[in-house]
Amino acid sequence: MFEEGAELKERHGPENVSDLSLGNPVTEPPAEFHRELKRLVENPPAGMHRYMANAGYAETRAAVAAQLSRETGIRFTLDDIVMACGAAGALNVVLKAILNQGDEVIIFAPYFPEYVNYIENHGGVARVLASDEQFVPRLDILEGALGVKARAVVINSPNNPTGVVYGEDFIRKLGGLLRRKAAQFGRQIFLISDEAYRRIIYDGLKYPYIWSHYEQSVVVTSHSKDLALPGERIGYIAVHPDCHQREELVAGLIHCNRVLGYVNAPALMQHLVRWLQSVTVAIADYQKKRDFLYRHLAEMGYSVIKPGGAFYLFPRSPIEDDVAFVRELQRRLVLTVPGRGFGTPGYFRIAYCVDDRTLEGSLDGFRRAAREFNLG
Amino acid sequence: MFEEGAELKERHGPENVSDLSLGNPVTEPPAEFHRELKRLVENPPAGMHRYMANAGYAETRAAVAAQLSRETGIRFTLDDIVMACGAAGALNVVLKAILNQGDEVIIFAPYFPEYVNYIENHGGVARVLASDEQFVPRLDILEGALGVKARAVVINSPNNPTGVVYGEDFIRKLGGLLRRKAAQFGRQIFLISDEAYRRIIYDGLKYPYIWSHYEQSVVVTSHSKDLALPGERIGYIAVHPDCHQREELVAGLIHCNRVLGYVNAPALMQHLVRWLQSVTVAIADYQKKRDFLYRHLAEMGYSVIKPGGAFYLFPRSPIEDDVAFVRELQRRLVLTVPGRGFGTPGYFRIAYCVDDRTLEGSLDGFRRAAREFNLG
Repeated sequence: MFEEGAELKERHGPENVSDLSLGNPVTEPPAEFHRELKRLVENPPAGMHRYMANAGYAETRAAVAAQLSRETGIRFTLDDIVMACGAAGALNVVLKAILNQGDEVIIFAPYFPEYVNYIENHGGVARVLASDEQFVPRLDILEGALGVKARAVVINSPNNPTGVVYGEDFIRKLGGLLRRKAAQFGRQIFLISDEAYRRIIYDGLKYPYIWSHYEQSVVVTSHSKDLALPGERIGYIAVHPDCHQREELVAGLIHCNRVLGYVNAPALMQHLVRWLQSVTVAIADYQKKRDFLYRHLAEMGYSVIKPGGAFYLFPRSPIEDDVAFVRELQRRLVLTVPGRGFGTPGYFRIAYCVDDRTLEGSLDGFRRAAREFNLG
Repeated sequence: MFEEGAELKERHGPENVSDLSLGNPVTEPPAEFHRELKRLVENPPAGMHRYMANAGYAETRAAVAAQLSRETGIRFTLDDIVMACGAAGALNVVLKAILNQGDEVIIFAPYFPEYVNYIENHGGVARVLASDEQFVPRLDILEGALGVKARAVVINSPNNPTGVVYGEDFIRKLGGLLRRKAAQFGRQIFLISDEAYRRIIYDGLKYPYIWSHYEQSVVVTSHSKDLALPGERIGYIAVHPDCHQREELVAGLIHCNRVLGYVNAPALMQHLVRWLQSVTVAIADYQKKRDFLYRHLAEMGYSVIKPGGAFYLFPRSPIEDDVAFVRELQRRLVLTVPGRGFGTPGYFRIAYCVDDRTLEGSLDGFRRAAREFNLG
């Protein structure tokens, strides 16, 4: 389908195709990033590009810990932080460190499709459970599914592909359930929270952290979205300070960062993000894009949840076959992704992290498809 | 032992401890690197930090291909190149792409110890074979060991830990042997050449490339040593243009770069190395350090091969127990690594990629240990 998209751009001119298929923000990194980069390049510290400890620079880890402490009110230190090659690297390191062959890792549809690859890379078995109509994981189903082989549950909020932010109440109940089940089986069950979009939330929402609700927890995240640096592969792992066997776990993470061949997060980016922990791209711009597209799609008759974060919408497909509908949109020069790619057929994903012209340009295609399929 | 080293530095002052234990060059990247970095930072192209194709920027891959073509006389195109997160990332991607569960990968002692981890990451079985007295792999042993489960042979020249550069004649014979065995078993056997130190060779040596001698071959390498960027994790995979099923292999490599969570080689570094393919650090400086240390060690009575490249020496331990001898050196404030860490007990590794003062400072400790153990 990507190739068909490229062909469309070739044929019609890229400016006439609205590509809403990729979570690759057009936003540039914030001014603070450029300022720090300039400062660093003009006065490079000796050895700036050398190996450091596999966990990353102590100064960067301390800066991450300080920021997390400020945000959450929980006291993190640099010993709770391992710098990683993006959230993808971070998640692979965590899974390698905690999984034994055949351990189950639970994920919830719709999910970021690479999760299944990452789990299988390390001998794990992905178990996909359902979410409710609001795209929030079904805890009643989770309760039945958590068995003696469960080693971890992965959540992702704000969510890719839905943009939904899980509420505090959900997190609290999830923590309680995991604690009960861990006690029942006499086995640690990890909660892994993929927070790549944590800073991209709207409407004055307060982000519901997992930290207060479950101790056996690990966050994986990156600066791909909040600083618009997806190509630079810079992120981190944060371990709950009260996690059982925290020291052994962190030592395992550092070891796995090395043996998986990541070795360390890129040095120059570590130097930079040290100073940028409280900085983000302009979130209000994303919110405007969400509001604009949500309003128009709802007016056209699409059934779509207004999500609290990330930069995706996940409307219901007007026809049952989401692949067929995505092809219909494609014929109208709008590129999106079928929901079945995220484990949820019958929906499609729109990535609105594009410039406003592209967004405006997509309306006509969405509108014509809506009319064709008798929406509104 | 590393912790003991850190403790020694604490107690005696770091300037009084000669740390020759790490392949982490003190050399700064060449002036050309800083010039390009400045140029890039002053005129950043739009979208410089965004995701690109998982294979890397076409322009960077084309620059790598052009350089390889110039060096080798074989015509590479960008379709033969995949940018990777260092040679470690590159090797993991290759192994993931070619290994089935239980496939054997042959390595030769002494070897870079992470090879075993990398092979096991992807379900492979590492088979360690012996080298001769000159630290060149024994082809007679390889001939007997290559069985129906063999999927790949990994070589590393210039070698870590010995510094030895394998000769053209050896590569030719190795290619011939692999071709015969592959035909015998009706099965592709890959030659994977880890060339992280390719540019760091001395005495006007001409590097013996594998390309002319075996088609089913893949090179993994990085700019960690030749541009002194080990912390930045920038390297690449090059596939022989005449490799059997080359397109499928390259597609597999790109896929594995993604699913292993590397996603892509760091964007900014890709932008830079595009312009630096013919640039290296000052190799003559390393040669001087090799000459200096080799001469002194030989004079003291150490049995040591004068290697043609990299920045390591691998002398025989004056006592059988290399760990005990490394401890003796440590007591004399010289830090090295026991040979058994590289699969070859009875030797120890010296990394001379340090400043001249550190190198000079180490002589006294080496000399006193030599006298203690009746060398010379």
